[in-house]
Amino acid sequence: MPVVTVTRRLQFNAAHRVHNPALSDEENSRLFGKCNNPNWHGHNYTLDVSVAGEIDEKTGYVIDLAVLKRIAEQKAVDLIDHKNLNLDVAFMRGVIPTSENIIVAIWRELAPAIERGKLVRLVLWETPNNYVEYTGE
Amino acid sequence: MPVVTVTRRLQFNAAHRVHNPALSDEENSRLFGKCNNPNWHGHNYTLDVSVAGEIDEKTGYVIDLAVLKRIAEQKAVDLIDHKNLNLDVAFMRGVIPTSENIIVAIWRELAPAIERGKLVRLVLWETPNNYVEYTGE
Amino acid sequence: MPVVTVTRRLQFNAAHRVHNPALSDEENSRLFGKCNNPNWHGHNYTLDVSVAGEIDEKTGYVIDLAVLKRIAEQKAVDLIDHKNLNLDVAFMRGVIPTSENIIVAIWRELAPAIERGKLVRLVLWETPNNYVEYTGE
Amino acid sequence: MPVVTVTRRLQFNAAHRVHNPALSDEENSRLFGKCNNPNWHGHNYTLDVSVAGEIDEKTGYVIDLAVLKRIAEQKAVDLIDHKNLNLDVAFMRGVIPTSENIIVAIWRELAPAIERGKLVRLVLWETPNNYVEYTGE
Amino acid sequence: MPVVTVTRRLQFNAAHRVHNPALSDEENSRLFGKCNNPNWHGHNYTLDVSVAGEIDEKTGYVIDLAVLKRIAEQKAVDLIDHKNLNLDVAFMRGVIPTSENIIVAIWRELAPAIERGKLVRLVLWETPNNYVEYTGE
Amino acid sequence: MPVVTVTRRLQFNAAHRVHNPALSDEENSRLFGKCNNPNWHGHNYTLDVSVAGEIDEKTGYVIDLAVLKRIAEQKAVDLIDHKNLNLDVAFMRGVIPTSENIIVAIWRELAPAIERGKLVRLVLWETPNNYVEYTGE
Repeated sequence: MPVVTVTRRLQFNAAHRVHNPALSDEENSRLFGKCNNPNWHGHNYTLDVSVAGEIDEKTGYVIDLAVLKRIAEQKAVDLIDHKNLNLDVAFMRGVIPTSENIIVAIWRELAPAIERGKLVRLVLWETPNNYVEYTGE
Repeated sequence: MPVVTVTRRLQFNAAHRVHNPALSDEENSRLFGKCNNPNWHGHNYTLDVSVAGEIDEKTGYVIDLAVLKRIAEQKAVDLIDHKNLNLDVAFMRGVIPTSENIIVAIWRELAPAIERGKLVRLVLWETPNNYVEYTGE
Repeated sequence: MPVVTVTRRLQFNAAHRVHNPALSDEENSRLFGKCNNPNWHGHNYTLDVSVAGEIDEKTGYVIDLAVLKRIAEQKAVDLIDHKNLNLDVAFMRGVIPTSENIIVAIWRELAPAIERGKLVRLVLWETPNNYVEYTGE
Repeated sequence: MPVVTVTRRLQFNAAHRVHNPALSDEENSRLFGKCNNPNWHGHNYTLDVSVAGEIDEKTGYVIDLAVLKRIAEQKAVDLIDHKNLNLDVAFMRGVIPTSENIIVAIWRELAPAIERGKLVRLVLWETPNNYVEYTGE
Repeated sequence: MPVVTVTRRLQFNAAHRVHNPALSDEENSRLFGKCNNPNWHGHNYTLDVSVAGEIDEKTGYVIDLAVLKRIAEQKAVDLIDHKNLNLDVAFMRGVIPTSENIIVAIWRELAPAIERGKLVRLVLWETPNNYVEYTGE
Repeated sequence: MPVVTVTRRLQFNAAHRVHNPALSDEENSRLFGKCNNPNWHGHNYTLDVSVAGEIDEKTGYVIDLAVLKRIAEQKAVDLIDHKNLNLDVAFMRGVIPTSENIIVAIWRELAPAIERGKLVRLVLWETPNNYVEYTGE
């Protein structure tokens, strides 16, 4: 059977502060500029979750997208939506909440939970002008 | 000369908490749900600033959009971008930072500052699925 | 209090056939071309529901958008999503399901159901290249 | 019958130079900056053509959008697409090709050609961050 | 010469029903939910057709996009646009019309017809929130 | 450390003419059609610049996107924005300004200038319906 990649797009929004607690306030301010605002700022994030696999002859699906959506919500999106990424999210603890670190943390939650096919790519948009991709390397 | 409406779109992102300090925590939680998270959440906002007026025969412009952008940034966007709308913004003080209240507050900053033509409409997108409009009424 | 217009965007998809049963097949084919395919075709529709009103001082809302979404879903979207607009929808009975007729039919369902503020505009996108607007006139 | 506004979106791209031949080069450069480049620059324009009218009971249409598209192409879009707005377009002769002047010029071509309903609004996007509207005033 | 991938985006809309005729109605309903509606539903599909190859020194093109568009329309898009994917399309016969099966069927029509360069990727959006990719594996 | 790809999106607009000076006017017209207009036409281009690398533990960044933006502007975007791609751009000299040749020319300017991580992909949109990708092959 052909191998197809299917993607479900999800949205969430969250507050964060790009801040490394191991560094001084001056160093943080120099490195991260306005993203270091101690009173936080936030984003509408867009997350594309991509699973590859053979098409199931019975259903014509690689994975039912309603199932993929449920997994992505239960394991990641519901835990970060309307949250503070520095304070509220167990799976982000101890990590500077840049897009790079967020996407790797989400990958680690989602990859083992995909029931059919294999997680092959995450794309995370932070603003309409920047996004990051991760393929598990 | 014909009257045309010109619009400049701007982006900013900010943290906020939908919270009425005059009410109890229970009442706030009941009214605002996850938008009341005490640790904040945030959004990428899109703001459309519309000015109407006669076309200037010398320039072909209603208002130079570079000028309109500069006014919108100096009077509003630079003061709320990467900020906390409950804590950091002088012109939002004492106001619950819903989209409705944000757009009225921005109007009051921008309307008197437009040098040519007249501010006729603001549109503010909070997420890809909701936006508010204000025309000064 | 200032009067603001708030909008909730919703999505649905549906099959339809642009067909007037009072006319001959030849006349239907001539008038509606490929949109008259007897085996149906379909669209992803985008619906913007706009309500205007004074801002409620207690909440900072014109209307809670979660409430507006629930009303729009219960009265319209859930009844037409993944449906055939010619066959499945009680409030579309006897009407050629063009975008113009769909939007007027949705208006009649939604307008009396809005609990706070007033329905002032519907916008319905049928494709990325065409949309219709209705303000109740 | 209800009055609905229907819109057809069209795309074209063109070169132009924002330049007033009645002024000196220095004045032009000061007024228009990089938009005054003597070697031209260009844009992908998006044009929304909106016609309002009563729904025709026989068709369910205000105006057949295929007809509206054909009129908009014949009277305007085909004459400006892949063209130089300063040099190639008869109906733009003698006009500084700002968005404001383009939209008024298109209105004058389209308004008398609409066969059913009435042209009520044009919107012209020059970039993803700015657009102009004209309603014939 | 450098190898570049060029993509032409096309739109079509169609009706379908996700249904496996080898299964009972109950099983179909359980597996496919509202997508199994016997009266059909439909979508606006967006198709990205990507061809890779060396740049032709004479034209600066990998493949003339007007040619690529014509091939994609003749071999696929014109045969499925405004059609019922279960009933009307010869190259979809006997296949459950999920996005996965549609994209593989389109690949088989297009791959042998590309005259210059090589078909390397198709992307098919079914809604703004889900899409599938196929690279011929 | 995990390897993530980060992307900064930039916009520019420019005039061009698809024209091969080694060929006759007739041949140029036959090959390039309306894109060969001697008076130029133009586009709003969207450029996605993607850099891959390990996440820096100190910052959580692969590369600071403000730095990536500055490099992309200084080495490419500021030199082509509001310019004529046939006449004004030193690094495009002698090249037919198709999207394929533009993206390769930009790659050659940007690849050696990336200070952290490695340029792995450029995507260039010429219109909303076509784009090209280059990965340095």
